[in-house]
Amino acid sequence: MTNNQLALMDQNDPLAKKVAAFQLPVDLVYLDGNSLGCLPLAAKQRAREVVEQQWGQDLIKSWNLHQWIDLPVSAGEKIGGLIGAAPGQTICCDSVSVNLFKLLSAALMMQPGRSVVLSQRGNFPTDLYMVQGLARLLGDDKCTLRLAADDDIASAMDDSVAVVLLSHVNFRSGALYDMGEITEKAHANGILVIWDLAHSAGVVPVQLDECDVDFAVGCGYKYLNGGPGAPAFLYAASRHHASVQQPLSGWMGHQAPFDFDNEYHAGAGVTGFLSGTPPVVSLSILDAALDIFADINIVDVRKKSLALADLFLQMVEQVPELCKLTLISPREESRRGSQLAYRHPQAFAICQALIAQGVIADFRAPDILRVGFSPLFLRFTDIGHSVQVLSAIMRDERWRDPVYAVRHKVT
Amino acid sequence: MTNNQLALMDQNDPLAKKVAAFQLPVDLVYLDGNSLGCLPLAAKQRAREVVEQQWGQDLIKSWNLHQWIDLPVSAGEKIGGLIGAAPGQTICCDSVSVNLFKLLSAALMMQPGRSVVLSQRGNFPTDLYMVQGLARLLGDDKCTLRLAADDDIASAMDDSVAVVLLSHVNFRSGALYDMGEITEKAHANGILVIWDLAHSAGVVPVQLDECDVDFAVGCGYKYLNGGPGAPAFLYAASRHHASVQQPLSGWMGHQAPFDFDNEYHAGAGVTGFLSGTPPVVSLSILDAALDIFADINIVDVRKKSLALADLFLQMVEQVPELCKLTLISPREESRRGSQLAYRHPQAFAICQALIAQGVIADFRAPDILRVGFSPLFLRFTDIGHSVQVLSAIMRDERWRDPVYAVRHKVT
Repeated sequence: MTNNQLALMDQNDPLAKKVAAFQLPVDLVYLDGNSLGCLPLAAKQRAREVVEQQWGQDLIKSWNLHQWIDLPVSAGEKIGGLIGAAPGQTICCDSVSVNLFKLLSAALMMQPGRSVVLSQRGNFPTDLYMVQGLARLLGDDKCTLRLAADDDIASAMDDSVAVVLLSHVNFRSGALYDMGEITEKAHANGILVIWDLAHSAGVVPVQLDECDVDFAVGCGYKYLNGGPGAPAFLYAASRHHASVQQPLSGWMGHQAPFDFDNEYHAGAGVTGFLSGTPPVVSLSILDAALDIFADINIVDVRKKSLALADLFLQMVEQVPELCKLTLISPREESRRGSQLAYRHPQAFAICQALIAQGVIADFRAPDILRVGFSPLFLRFTDIGHSVQVLSAIMRDERWRDPVYAVRHKVT
Repeated sequence: MTNNQLALMDQNDPLAKKVAAFQLPVDLVYLDGNSLGCLPLAAKQRAREVVEQQWGQDLIKSWNLHQWIDLPVSAGEKIGGLIGAAPGQTICCDSVSVNLFKLLSAALMMQPGRSVVLSQRGNFPTDLYMVQGLARLLGDDKCTLRLAADDDIASAMDDSVAVVLLSHVNFRSGALYDMGEITEKAHANGILVIWDLAHSAGVVPVQLDECDVDFAVGCGYKYLNGGPGAPAFLYAASRHHASVQQPLSGWMGHQAPFDFDNEYHAGAGVTGFLSGTPPVVSLSILDAALDIFADINIVDVRKKSLALADLFLQMVEQVPELCKLTLISPREESRRGSQLAYRHPQAFAICQALIAQGVIADFRAPDILRVGFSPLFLRFTDIGHSVQVLSAIMRDERWRDPVYAVRHKVT
């Protein structure tokens, strides 16, 4: 692929104009939007506004004046539009971990006589840890984590299973589950489903309502570009609203928080899943970041995501020096999210060498090099450049430089 | 009290220089720092830095480069210094509500055979709601909320009580509990204590270690000036670290989050109380705001807090028009926090009239006018001005203007 060909792909890219909506560091190719998305200019502007004007000048009045009180719902609805959720089912609050706890508890309370939470081996750890924490609290007879390999999930759905908890896209391999099929199979067995959309929301079209999903959570700081540690989101299907209860019943989930009632009465619909006071600055930034999606279609985002990944994949396959990188992501487009993962014994040092050369990828222990494709701020020429840099590192074995072997706390 | 006398008090105030550390709206007296503290200039600067430089330019590298990963502990330690907690016991994370759930669950797991959580009638609602939520999850035989009037707390401490959960300063009346005495009495009855420091941290000297307190939570956005919805804090006494477990065991509480281990192993000490990814922007702002306390003594803060409140109290008592405001806060200095609460049938409209005249107080249903004294940004002349404005409103019965009767969602 020549540089001219790559430039032509950028020229023909209908999403190319979105790149200018971000503040991107110069001389950097950022293939880690699946860990932390880049800074949208609108989010930068909003941060100044919220801190300096809303908090600094209008102070407590901002809860009404600038609708801080509505942010969990207003940001939630913007995400709802990206994940196939009709209004009234999605809110932004807390972290993925905390939201999972709410949903796991709620789902188990809806399933008397069933105690197993079934998940995939190799799911993102916090998903598993939250089940383990709930099990310690409730006792194994009320909550037990069962892990199955990807291919065994369906066959593990017996009548002891209360909930299936799965990541839509695996954080390591990028493998994409068939949401409709698994949800249907779970329901046929009387099982509720919770989907973790951390690696799909904002980049893979998701159809929660259409797939009849019960519950979902997801992350604000990856493909949604909501900033470091942005609040997470939570989806609960309307049909469960009347009966569902969750235990983290803080005052923001009360039907009238400012009545200071001594008794908890859950707010209508999904708002009963709110808990404490939200981190307004972080939540406002996410809210502003989401506006980037207002005038584009998630189907087009997916199309570009796959085109970027396919380009990377093909270019890697054409370079002899890169043959020792073993693809562990599914090759088939329909079976992966928006990242590619390669196994290599020196993945850590290779990743460090890439970063030193201005290509930010990431490493996942023990030996995985992960490259993520955020279609809103990446160009096809960026992909070309990153494969060239990777090729040079592998050809010259630059990763052997001891400086790249130093592990930091976070990679 | 003449304006000259008030000005002299400001001149002699050793904390007067701190006023310049805040961005304060002009022509406004802000008596609501107990709801939302004002914007420290350092926090404004830090917000720009974190968003525009750290996130915008350094992106994912900032977890190490700018120590995002350490923020829950580094901000926690700064608060620890204000609440009498030796290092290693305080972290910043989540909301008060969520942190209460962690501590309530943990404390109940430490107290087999006891199920009652004893709290004060009129405690801040979210504290009660979190107990109610936990009770719904565990069942009444494992968790029951018992409420007692302030004076009956001690006598309600029987051997069914697992935990006493109290606010150090009551959010309505400003009444201050005797932490040492109640904690000692609880321990004598085999009961663990959780103190909610929302209305005392940063303004009332707290001695958690000295009082042998087990657990505490508190709020980042009131007297700590950490910004709207700033992350909360959590304290767990060292002696419990080896045995305590909490159920919201997210990946940030794991001893090695980036090993992506399938099994949860709690981090050392209080870090095992962390859960999901923290909202870095909001947390950084709080971290910067806390530096205001670095060169001052909390004893001096308390001294000024009481002086401001006493001035308000005395001036109100000297104005005949204000005699219909009934003080419900304890008159005795040692028995109140940093606010005064007055009952009046028209408290809501009076509060709105004050706000319209540039004096921000707040209203708590059904009939309480609450004025908070944040000693770091308030001057004695501000107090004088606010009583003058209040007097004029009451004298002319301006609160009868129908415009002040309109209730907003949040007051």
